[in-house]
Amino acid sequence: MRWVFFTVDGNEYVGFLKDDQIMVVQGDPFQRDYWETGDVFRLDDVVLTAPCRPTKIVCIGLNYKDHAQEMKMELPEEPILFLKPPSAVLPHGGDIVYPDGVKRLDYEGELAVVIGKRAKNVPAAEALQYVFGYTCSNDVTARDLQKKDQQWTRAKSFDTFCPLGPWIATDLDSANLNISLEVNGVRKQASNTSQLAFAVPELIAFVSGVMTLEPGDVILTGTPSGVGPLQKGDTVTVKIDGVGELTNTVV
Amino acid sequence: MRWVFFTVDGNEYVGFLKDDQIMVVQGDPFQRDYWETGDVFRLDDVVLTAPCRPTKIVCIGLNYKDHAQEMKMELPEEPILFLKPPSAVLPHGGDIVYPDGVKRLDYEGELAVVIGKRAKNVPAAEALQYVFGYTCSNDVTARDLQKKDQQWTRAKSFDTFCPLGPWIATDLDSANLNISLEVNGVRKQASNTSQLAFAVPELIAFVSGVMTLEPGDVILTGTPSGVGPLQKGDTVTVKIDGVGELTNTVV
Repeated sequence: MRWVFFTVDGNEYVGFLKDDQIMVVQGDPFQRDYWETGDVFRLDDVVLTAPCRPTKIVCIGLNYKDHAQEMKMELPEEPILFLKPPSAVLPHGGDIVYPDGVKRLDYEGELAVVIGKRAKNVPAAEALQYVFGYTCSNDVTARDLQKKDQQWTRAKSFDTFCPLGPWIATDLDSANLNISLEVNGVRKQASNTSQLAFAVPELIAFVSGVMTLEPGDVILTGTPSGVGPLQKGDTVTVKIDGVGELTNTVV
Repeated sequence: MRWVFFTVDGNEYVGFLKDDQIMVVQGDPFQRDYWETGDVFRLDDVVLTAPCRPTKIVCIGLNYKDHAQEMKMELPEEPILFLKPPSAVLPHGGDIVYPDGVKRLDYEGELAVVIGKRAKNVPAAEALQYVFGYTCSNDVTARDLQKKDQQWTRAKSFDTFCPLGPWIATDLDSANLNISLEVNGVRKQASNTSQLAFAVPELIAFVSGVMTLEPGDVILTGTPSGVGPLQKGDTVTVKIDGVGELTNTVV
Protein backbone atom coordinates (compact mmCIF):
# COMPACT_ATOMS: atom_id res chain seq x y z
CA MET A 1 0.00 0.00 0.00
CA ARG A 2 1.00 3.61 -0.41
CA TRP A 3 0.06 5.76 2.58
CA VAL A 4 -0.47 9.40 1.78
CA PHE A 5 -0.43 12.24 4.32
CA PHE A 6 -1.96 15.44 2.98
CA THR A 7 -4.04 18.52 3.49
CA VAL A 8 -7.08 19.86 1.68
CA ASP A 9 -8.18 23.41 2.51
CA GLY A 10 -5.81 23.28 5.49
CA ASN A 11 -7.38 20.15 7.00
CA GLU A 12 -5.10 17.15 7.61
CA TYR A 13 -5.94 13.71 6.22
CA VAL A 14 -4.41 10.27 5.90
CA GLY A 15 -5.32 7.80 3.24
CA PHE A 16 -4.05 5.17 0.82
CA LEU A 17 -3.61 5.37 -2.92
CA LYS A 18 -5.85 3.52 -5.35
CA ASP A 19 -4.67 4.49 -8.83
CA ASP A 20 -4.75 8.31 -8.76
CA GLN A 21 -7.30 8.50 -5.96
CA ILE A 22 -6.78 8.67 -2.20
CA MET A 23 -9.12 6.65 0.00
CA VAL A 24 -9.29 8.54 3.31
CA VAL A 25 -8.99 6.61 6.58
CA GLN A 26 -9.30 7.40 10.25
CA GLY A 27 -7.35 5.64 12.98
CA ASP A 28 -3.63 4.82 12.97
CA PRO A 29 -2.14 3.08 9.92
CA PHE A 30 1.10 2.60 11.91
CA GLN A 31 -0.80 0.32 14.29
CA ARG A 32 -2.69 -1.22 11.33
CA ASP A 33 -5.80 0.03 13.13
CA TYR A 34 -7.84 2.16 10.71
CA TRP A 35 -11.09 2.28 8.80
CA GLU A 36 -12.14 3.98 5.57
CA THR A 37 -14.30 7.04 5.99
CA GLY A 38 -15.68 6.80 2.47
CA ASP A 39 -14.12 10.16 1.53
CA VAL A 40 -12.08 10.11 -1.66
CA PHE A 41 -9.75 12.79 -3.06
CA ARG A 42 -7.94 12.96 -6.36
CA LEU A 43 -4.16 12.99 -5.83
CA ASP A 44 -3.90 16.10 -7.99
CA ASP A 45 -6.24 18.00 -5.69
CA VAL A 46 -4.30 17.63 -2.43
CA VAL A 47 -1.15 19.09 -0.86
CA LEU A 48 1.22 16.37 0.35
CA THR A 49 2.70 16.78 3.82
CA ALA A 50 5.69 14.96 5.28
CA PRO A 51 4.77 11.27 5.50
CA CYS A 52 5.75 10.95 9.16
CA ARG A 53 6.73 13.03 12.20
CA PRO A 54 9.93 11.44 13.43
CA THR A 55 11.18 11.96 16.98
CA LYS A 56 14.56 11.21 15.46
CA ILE A 57 16.13 10.85 12.04
CA VAL A 58 19.06 8.46 12.11
CA CYS A 59 21.37 8.63 9.12
CA ILE A 60 24.00 6.17 7.97
CA GLY A 61 27.27 7.45 6.52
CA LEU A 62 29.18 5.77 3.71
CA ASN A 63 26.87 2.82 3.24
CA TYR A 64 27.28 2.28 -0.52
CA LYS A 65 30.63 0.96 -1.65
CA ASP A 66 30.79 3.31 -4.64
CA HIS A 67 30.03 6.42 -2.55
CA ALA A 68 32.78 5.61 -0.03
CA GLN A 69 35.16 5.31 -2.96
CA GLU A 70 34.22 8.70 -4.48
CA MET A 71 34.60 10.34 -1.03
CA LYS A 72 38.04 8.67 -0.77
CA MET A 73 37.02 7.07 2.52
CA GLU A 74 37.11 3.42 3.52
CA LEU A 75 33.93 1.52 4.19
CA PRO A 76 33.46 1.43 7.96
CA GLU A 77 33.53 -1.86 9.94
CA GLU A 78 30.28 -0.81 11.60
CA PRO A 79 27.63 1.65 10.42
CA ILE A 80 28.55 5.30 11.05
CA LEU A 81 25.59 7.12 12.62
CA PHE A 82 24.59 10.75 12.61
CA LEU A 83 21.31 12.51 13.34
CA LYS A 84 19.25 15.16 11.59
CA PRO A 85 16.78 17.16 13.70
CA PRO A 86 13.02 16.85 13.04
CA SER A 87 13.05 20.54 12.09
CA ALA A 88 14.89 19.60 8.89
CA VAL A 89 11.95 17.59 7.47
CA LEU A 90 10.50 18.89 4.19
CA PRO A 91 7.60 17.35 2.24
CA HIS A 92 7.48 16.51 -1.45
CA GLY A 93 7.10 19.77 -3.34
CA GLY A 94 8.66 21.89 -0.59
CA ASP A 95 11.56 24.26 -1.17
CA ILE A 96 15.10 23.41 -0.08
CA VAL A 97 16.51 26.68 1.28
CA TYR A 98 20.15 27.33 0.28
CA PRO A 99 21.58 28.83 3.49
CA ASP A 100 23.43 32.13 3.42
CA GLY A 101 27.17 31.58 3.69
CA VAL A 102 27.13 27.99 2.43
CA LYS A 103 29.47 27.53 -0.52
CA ARG A 104 28.51 24.07 -1.72
CA LEU A 105 25.16 22.37 -1.26
CA ASP A 106 24.97 18.70 -2.28
CA TYR A 107 22.11 16.30 -2.92
CA GLU A 108 22.26 12.71 -1.60
CA GLY A 109 19.35 10.50 -2.68
CA GLU A 110 18.54 7.76 -0.15
CA LEU A 111 16.06 5.05 0.76
CA ALA A 112 14.39 5.96 4.06
CA VAL A 113 13.00 3.30 6.39
CA VAL A 114 9.97 4.36 8.44
CA ILE A 115 9.68 2.52 11.77
CA GLY A 116 6.26 1.06 12.63
CA LYS A 117 6.58 0.08 16.28
CA ARG A 118 8.90 0.70 19.19
CA ALA A 119 12.21 -1.08 18.61
CA LYS A 120 15.00 -1.68 21.13
CA ASN A 121 17.75 -4.30 20.75
CA VAL A 122 15.97 -5.93 17.83
CA PRO A 123 17.85 -8.83 16.18
CA ALA A 124 18.39 -8.49 12.43
CA ALA A 125 16.33 -11.63 11.78
CA GLU A 126 13.25 -9.95 13.28
CA ALA A 127 14.00 -6.38 12.22
CA LEU A 128 11.64 -6.16 9.24
CA GLN A 129 8.67 -6.69 11.58
CA TYR A 130 9.43 -3.23 12.97
CA VAL A 131 9.23 -1.49 9.58
CA PHE A 132 6.07 0.35 8.64
CA GLY A 133 7.30 1.16 5.16
CA TYR A 134 9.69 3.05 2.96
CA THR A 135 9.94 6.49 1.44
CA CYS A 136 12.40 8.53 -0.61
CA SER A 137 14.74 10.97 1.10
CA ASN A 138 17.40 13.50 0.22
CA ASP A 139 20.22 13.93 2.75
CA VAL A 140 20.91 17.53 1.73
CA THR A 141 24.41 18.47 2.87
CA ALA A 142 26.43 21.70 3.07
CA ARG A 143 29.60 19.97 1.90
CA ASP A 144 31.92 22.86 2.79
CA LEU A 145 30.66 22.93 6.39
CA GLN A 146 30.87 19.14 6.64
CA LYS A 147 34.58 19.34 5.79
CA LYS A 148 35.21 22.32 8.04
CA ASP A 149 33.47 20.97 11.14
CA GLN A 150 34.62 17.34 10.84
CA GLN A 151 31.44 16.53 12.77
CA TRP A 152 28.70 16.27 10.12
CA THR A 153 25.77 17.53 12.18
CA ARG A 154 25.68 21.23 11.31
CA ALA A 155 26.20 20.56 7.59
CA LYS A 156 23.20 18.25 7.50
CA SER A 157 20.82 19.90 9.99
CA PHE A 158 19.61 23.11 8.38
CA ASP A 159 15.86 23.56 8.09
CA THR A 160 14.58 21.91 4.85
CA PHE A 161 17.66 19.62 4.60
CA CYS A 162 15.60 16.42 4.99
CA PRO A 163 13.06 16.06 2.17
CA LEU A 164 10.91 12.95 2.80
CA GLY A 165 8.18 11.60 0.57
CA PRO A 166 6.10 11.61 -1.46
CA TRP A 167 4.38 8.93 0.71
CA ILE A 168 5.14 5.67 2.51
CA ALA A 169 5.09 2.43 0.55
CA THR A 170 4.63 -0.80 2.48
CA ASP A 171 5.36 -4.45 1.63
CA LEU A 172 8.53 -3.83 -0.39
CA ASP A 173 11.68 -5.95 -0.58
CA SER A 174 14.20 -3.38 0.67
CA ALA A 175 17.09 -5.57 -0.50
CA ASN A 176 16.40 -4.99 -4.19
CA LEU A 177 15.13 -1.51 -5.04
CA ASN A 178 16.44 0.63 -7.86
CA ILE A 179 17.25 4.12 -6.62
CA SER A 180 18.16 7.12 -8.73
CA LEU A 181 18.40 10.89 -8.51
CA GLU A 182 17.97 13.57 -11.15
CA VAL A 183 18.80 17.27 -11.15
CA ASN A 184 16.74 19.22 -13.68
CA GLY A 185 15.89 15.94 -15.40
CA VAL A 186 19.52 14.82 -15.75
CA ARG A 187 20.39 11.56 -14.01
CA LYS A 188 23.15 11.98 -11.42
CA GLN A 189 22.85 8.91 -9.19
CA ALA A 190 21.68 5.38 -10.04
CA SER A 191 22.10 2.27 -7.96
CA ASN A 192 20.23 -0.52 -6.23
CA THR A 193 19.80 -1.19 -2.53
CA SER A 194 21.47 -4.56 -3.11
CA GLN A 195 24.68 -2.48 -3.09
CA LEU A 196 24.21 -1.37 0.53
CA ALA A 197 27.17 -2.30 2.70
CA PHE A 198 24.79 -2.75 5.66
CA ALA A 199 21.29 -3.84 4.61
CA VAL A 200 18.07 -2.62 6.23
CA PRO A 201 17.71 -5.45 8.80
CA GLU A 202 21.31 -5.00 9.96
CA LEU A 203 20.82 -1.24 10.24
CA ILE A 204 17.70 -1.62 12.38
CA ALA A 205 19.49 -4.12 14.61
CA PHE A 206 22.51 -1.82 14.96
CA VAL A 207 20.60 1.41 15.57
CA SER A 208 18.07 -0.16 17.95
CA GLY A 209 21.00 -1.56 19.92
CA VAL A 210 21.98 2.03 20.65
CA MET A 211 18.69 3.93 20.91
CA THR A 212 15.01 3.10 21.20
CA LEU A 213 13.23 3.70 17.89
CA GLU A 214 9.64 5.00 17.99
CA PRO A 215 6.85 4.70 15.40
CA GLY A 216 7.44 7.34 12.73
CA ASP A 217 11.20 7.46 13.34
CA VAL A 218 13.26 7.31 10.17
CA ILE A 219 16.52 5.68 9.17
CA LEU A 220 18.22 7.14 6.09
CA THR A 221 20.21 4.26 4.69
CA GLY A 222 23.02 6.13 2.92
CA THR A 223 23.60 7.42 -0.58
CA PRO A 224 25.17 5.81 -3.67
CA SER A 225 27.91 7.40 -5.77
CA GLY A 226 27.33 10.43 -7.95
CA VAL A 227 26.81 13.08 -5.27
CA GLY A 228 27.19 16.60 -6.54
CA PRO A 229 26.18 20.22 -6.11
CA LEU A 230 22.82 21.96 -6.30
CA GLN A 231 22.28 25.56 -7.37
CA LYS A 232 19.42 27.88 -6.58
CA GLY A 233 16.60 27.16 -9.00
CA ASP A 234 17.51 23.49 -9.45
CA THR A 235 14.83 20.84 -9.23
CA VAL A 236 15.99 17.59 -7.64
CA THR A 237 14.08 14.29 -7.79
CA VAL A 238 14.77 11.06 -5.91
CA LYS A 239 13.14 7.99 -7.50
CA ILE A 240 12.82 4.59 -5.89
CA ASP A 241 11.07 1.74 -7.69
CA GLY A 242 7.96 0.69 -5.84
CA VAL A 243 7.94 3.87 -3.78
CA GLY A 244 7.66 6.89 -6.06
CA GLU A 245 9.30 10.24 -6.77
CA LEU A 246 10.30 12.93 -4.30
CA THR A 247 10.78 16.31 -5.99
CA ASN A 248 11.99 19.57 -4.42
CA THR A 249 13.30 22.86 -5.71
CA VAL A 250 16.26 24.79 -4.33
CA VAL A 251 15.55 28.43 -3.48
CA MET B 1 11.63 30.19 39.93
CA ARG B 2 12.34 26.50 39.89
CA TRP B 3 9.89 24.53 37.75
CA VAL B 4 9.44 20.94 38.79
CA PHE B 5 7.98 18.17 36.62
CA PHE B 6 6.96 15.11 38.60
CA THR B 7 4.57 12.26 39.20
CA VAL B 8 2.62 11.20 42.27
CA ASP B 9 0.93 7.79 42.12
CA GLY B 10 1.62 7.77 38.40
CA ASN B 11 -0.15 11.07 37.71
CA GLU B 12 1.86 13.84 36.03
CA TYR B 13 2.13 17.31 37.57
CA VAL B 14 3.97 20.57 37.03
CA GLY B 15 4.68 23.07 39.77
CA PHE B 16 7.18 25.46 41.22
CA LEU B 17 9.31 25.13 44.32
CA LYS B 18 8.69 27.16 47.46
CA ASP B 19 11.25 25.97 50.00
CA ASP B 20 10.77 22.19 50.06
CA GLN B 21 7.20 22.32 48.80
CA ILE B 22 5.86 22.21 45.26
CA MET B 23 2.96 24.49 44.37
CA VAL B 24 1.08 22.72 41.57
CA VAL B 25 -0.01 24.68 38.51
CA GLN B 26 -2.08 24.02 35.42
CA GLY B 27 -1.48 25.64 32.06
CA ASP B 28 1.86 26.08 30.32
CA PRO B 29 4.78 27.58 32.25
CA PHE B 30 6.74 27.80 28.97
CA GLN B 31 4.17 30.31 27.70
CA ARG B 32 4.06 31.96 31.16
CA ASP B 33 0.37 31.06 31.05
CA TYR B 34 -0.50 29.11 34.21
CA TRP B 35 -2.47 29.27 37.44
CA GLU B 36 -2.02 27.62 40.81
CA THR B 37 -4.44 24.79 41.53
CA GLY B 38 -3.96 25.06 45.28
CA ASP B 39 -2.49 21.55 45.45
CA VAL B 40 0.81 21.31 47.31
CA PHE B 41 3.24 18.38 47.52
CA ARG B 42 6.37 17.96 49.58
CA LEU B 43 9.42 17.57 47.33
CA ASP B 44 10.36 14.37 49.20
CA ASP B 45 7.02 12.78 48.32
CA VAL B 46 7.22 13.04 44.52
CA VAL B 47 9.10 11.30 41.71
CA LEU B 48 10.89 13.78 39.45
CA THR B 49 10.51 13.32 35.70
CA ALA B 50 12.63 14.87 32.97
CA PRO B 51 12.09 18.65 33.10
CA CYS B 52 11.25 18.95 29.40
CA ARG B 53 10.48 16.86 26.33
CA PRO B 54 12.86 18.14 23.69
CA THR B 55 12.23 17.60 20.00
CA LYS B 56 15.98 17.97 19.72
CA ILE B 57 19.01 18.09 22.01
CA VAL B 58 21.78 20.17 20.49
CA CYS B 59 25.20 19.69 22.04
CA ILE B 60 28.30 21.85 21.76
CA GLY B 61 31.72 20.20 21.52
CA LEU B 62 34.90 21.62 23.06
CA ASN B 63 33.37 24.78 24.49
CA TYR B 64 35.55 25.17 27.60
CA LYS B 65 39.16 26.10 26.98
CA ASP B 66 40.46 23.69 29.62
CA HIS B 67 38.50 20.70 28.21
CA ALA B 68 39.78 21.31 24.67
CA GLN B 69 43.29 21.29 26.12
CA GLU B 70 42.84 17.98 27.97
CA MET B 71 41.39 16.39 24.81
CA LYS B 72 44.45 17.73 22.91
CA MET B 73 42.17 19.48 20.46
CA GLU B 74 42.15 23.12 19.42
CA LEU B 75 39.25 25.37 20.29
CA PRO B 76 37.07 25.61 17.18
CA GLU B 77 36.53 28.90 15.32
CA GLU B 78 32.79 28.25 15.42
CA PRO B 79 30.77 26.04 17.76
CA ILE B 80 30.91 22.33 16.87
CA LEU B 81 27.40 20.86 16.94
CA PHE B 82 26.16 17.35 17.51
CA LEU B 83 22.76 15.95 18.45
CA LYS B 84 21.52 13.48 21.01
CA PRO B 85 18.16 11.80 20.37
CA PRO B 86 15.21 12.45 22.72
CA SER B 87 15.31 8.74 23.63
CA ALA B 88 18.52 9.43 25.58
CA VAL B 89 16.82 11.68 28.15
CA LEU B 90 16.96 10.45 31.77
CA PRO B 91 15.49 12.24 34.80
CA HIS B 92 17.19 12.98 38.10
CA GLY B 93 17.43 9.72 40.03
CA GLY B 94 17.29 7.53 36.92
CA ASP B 95 19.86 4.86 36.13
CA ILE B 96 22.54 5.38 33.48
CA VAL B 97 22.81 2.02 31.70
CA TYR B 98 26.40 0.99 30.88
CA PRO B 99 26.00 -0.57 27.40
CA ASP B 100 27.33 -4.04 26.69
CA GLY B 101 30.53 -3.87 24.69
CA VAL B 102 31.43 -0.32 25.71
CA LYS B 103 34.94 -0.17 27.20
CA ARG B 104 35.01 3.34 28.61
CA LEU B 105 32.02 5.37 29.75
CA ASP B 106 32.70 9.02 30.65
CA TYR B 107 30.74 11.68 32.49
CA GLU B 108 30.60 15.27 31.18
CA GLY B 109 28.80 17.74 33.44
CA GLU B 110 27.16 20.60 31.53
CA LEU B 111 24.84 23.57 31.82
CA ALA B 112 21.72 22.91 29.73
CA VAL B 113 19.69 25.77 28.26
CA VAL B 114 15.95 25.06 27.89
CA ILE B 115 14.31 27.00 25.05
CA GLY B 116 11.07 28.82 25.86
CA LYS B 117 9.76 29.85 22.48
CA ARG B 118 10.34 29.08 18.82
CA ALA B 119 13.68 30.51 17.72
CA LYS B 120 14.99 30.89 14.17
CA ASN B 121 17.84 33.21 13.15
CA VAL B 122 17.84 34.95 16.52
CA PRO B 123 20.54 37.59 17.01
CA ALA B 124 22.75 37.10 20.10
CA ALA B 125 21.57 40.41 21.54
CA GLU B 126 18.00 39.08 21.71
CA ALA B 127 18.78 35.44 22.39
CA LEU B 128 18.11 35.37 26.13
CA GLN B 129 14.46 36.27 25.45
CA TYR B 130 14.11 32.78 23.96
CA VAL B 131 15.38 31.00 27.08
CA PHE B 132 12.84 29.45 29.45
CA GLY B 133 15.48 28.45 31.99
CA TYR B 134 18.44 26.25 32.83
CA THR B 135 19.00 22.76 34.13
CA CYS B 136 21.92 20.43 34.84
CA SER B 137 22.93 17.81 32.29
CA ASN B 138 25.41 15.02 31.88
CA ASP B 139 26.64 14.38 28.35
CA VAL B 140 27.38 10.70 29.00
CA THR B 141 29.81 9.43 26.36
CA ALA B 142 31.17 6.02 25.32
CA ARG B 143 34.68 7.39 24.82
CA ASP B 144 35.99 4.31 23.02
CA LEU B 145 33.18 4.46 20.44
CA GLN B 146 33.65 8.22 20.03
CA LYS B 147 37.27 7.63 19.03
CA LYS B 148 36.46 4.64 16.83
CA ASP B 149 33.60 6.24 14.89
CA GLN B 150 35.11 9.74 14.50
CA GLN B 151 31.52 10.90 14.29
CA TRP B 152 30.39 11.36 17.90
CA THR B 153 26.73 10.47 17.50
CA ARG B 154 26.67 6.78 18.39
CA ALA B 155 28.93 7.28 21.42
CA LYS B 156 26.60 9.90 22.85
CA SER B 157 23.17 8.57 21.81
CA PHE B 158 22.53 5.44 23.88
CA ASP B 159 19.33 5.38 25.91
CA THR B 160 19.92 7.06 29.35
CA PHE B 161 22.95 9.04 28.05
CA CYS B 162 21.29 12.42 28.60
CA PRO B 163 20.44 12.96 32.27
CA LEU B 164 18.57 16.28 32.65
CA GLY B 165 17.36 17.84 35.88
CA PRO B 166 16.50 17.99 38.65
CA TRP B 167 14.26 20.85 37.47
CA ILE B 168 14.39 24.09 35.42
CA ALA B 169 15.60 27.27 37.10
CA THR B 170 14.60 30.58 35.53
CA ASP B 171 16.01 34.11 35.85
CA LEU B 172 19.68 33.13 36.17
CA ASP B 173 22.74 34.91 34.80
CA SER B 174 24.10 32.15 32.57
CA ALA B 175 27.41 34.01 32.20
CA ASN B 176 28.50 33.38 35.78
CA LEU B 177 27.43 30.05 37.22
CA ASN B 178 29.68 27.70 39.15
CA ILE B 179 29.44 24.17 37.75
CA SER B 180 30.93 21.04 39.26
CA LEU B 181 30.66 17.28 39.05
CA GLU B 182 31.27 14.60 41.66
CA VAL B 183 31.61 10.84 41.35
CA ASN B 184 30.80 9.02 44.59
CA GLY B 185 31.19 12.33 46.41
CA VAL B 186 34.66 13.08 45.01
CA ARG B 187 34.94 16.27 42.98
CA LYS B 188 36.10 15.64 39.39
CA GLN B 189 35.09 18.79 37.50
CA ALA B 190 34.83 22.39 38.71
CA SER B 191 34.52 25.50 36.58
CA ASN B 192 32.34 28.50 35.89
CA THR B 193 30.29 29.31 32.80
CA SER B 194 32.38 32.50 32.46
CA GLN B 195 34.97 30.10 30.97
CA LEU B 196 32.73 29.13 28.03
CA ALA B 197 34.41 29.81 24.70
CA PHE B 198 30.98 30.57 23.20
CA ALA B 199 28.52 31.97 25.75
CA VAL B 200 24.81 31.13 25.86
CA PRO B 201 23.55 34.05 23.69
CA GLU B 202 26.13 33.27 20.99
CA LEU B 203 25.19 29.59 21.06
CA ILE B 204 21.48 30.33 20.63
CA ALA B 205 22.26 32.69 17.76
CA PHE B 206 24.50 30.13 16.10
CA VAL B 207 22.22 27.11 16.53
CA SER B 208 19.04 28.98 15.59
CA GLY B 209 20.84 30.15 12.44
CA VAL B 210 20.97 26.49 11.41
CA MET B 211 17.78 24.94 12.78
CA THR B 212 14.49 26.14 14.25
CA LEU B 213 14.44 25.63 18.01
CA GLU B 214 11.12 24.70 19.65
CA PRO B 215 9.92 25.21 23.24
CA GLY B 216 11.43 22.48 25.38
CA ASP B 217 14.42 21.98 23.09
CA VAL B 218 17.72 21.85 24.91
CA ILE B 219 21.23 23.12 24.20
CA LEU B 220 24.02 21.41 26.14
CA THR B 221 26.71 24.06 26.40
CA GLY B 222 29.80 21.84 26.68
CA THR B 223 31.84 20.41 29.53
CA PRO B 224 34.83 21.80 31.45
CA SER B 225 38.07 19.88 32.05
CA GLY B 226 38.27 16.85 34.31
CA VAL B 227 36.28 14.36 32.27
CA GLY B 228 36.87 10.77 33.31
CA PRO B 229 35.40 7.29 33.50
CA LEU B 230 32.39 5.88 35.29
CA GLN B 231 32.05 2.32 36.57
CA LYS B 232 28.92 0.32 37.27
CA GLY B 233 27.68 1.25 40.73
CA ASP B 234 29.06 4.81 40.62
CA THR B 235 26.87 7.72 41.61
CA VAL B 236 27.46 10.88 39.57
CA THR B 237 26.20 14.35 40.52
CA VAL B 238 26.25 17.54 38.44
CA LYS B 239 25.88 20.71 40.56
CA ILE B 240 25.17 24.17 39.20
CA ASP B 241 24.79 27.14 41.54
CA GLY B 242 21.29 28.54 41.34
CA VAL B 243 19.99 25.43 39.62
CA GLY B 244 20.49 22.40 41.83
CA GLU B 245 21.95 18.91 41.77
CA LEU B 246 21.37 16.16 39.20
CA THR B 247 22.25 12.71 40.54
CA ASN B 248 22.24 9.41 38.68
CA THR B 249 23.65 5.96 39.29
CA VAL B 250 25.42 3.77 36.72
CA VAL B 251 24.02 0.26 36.38
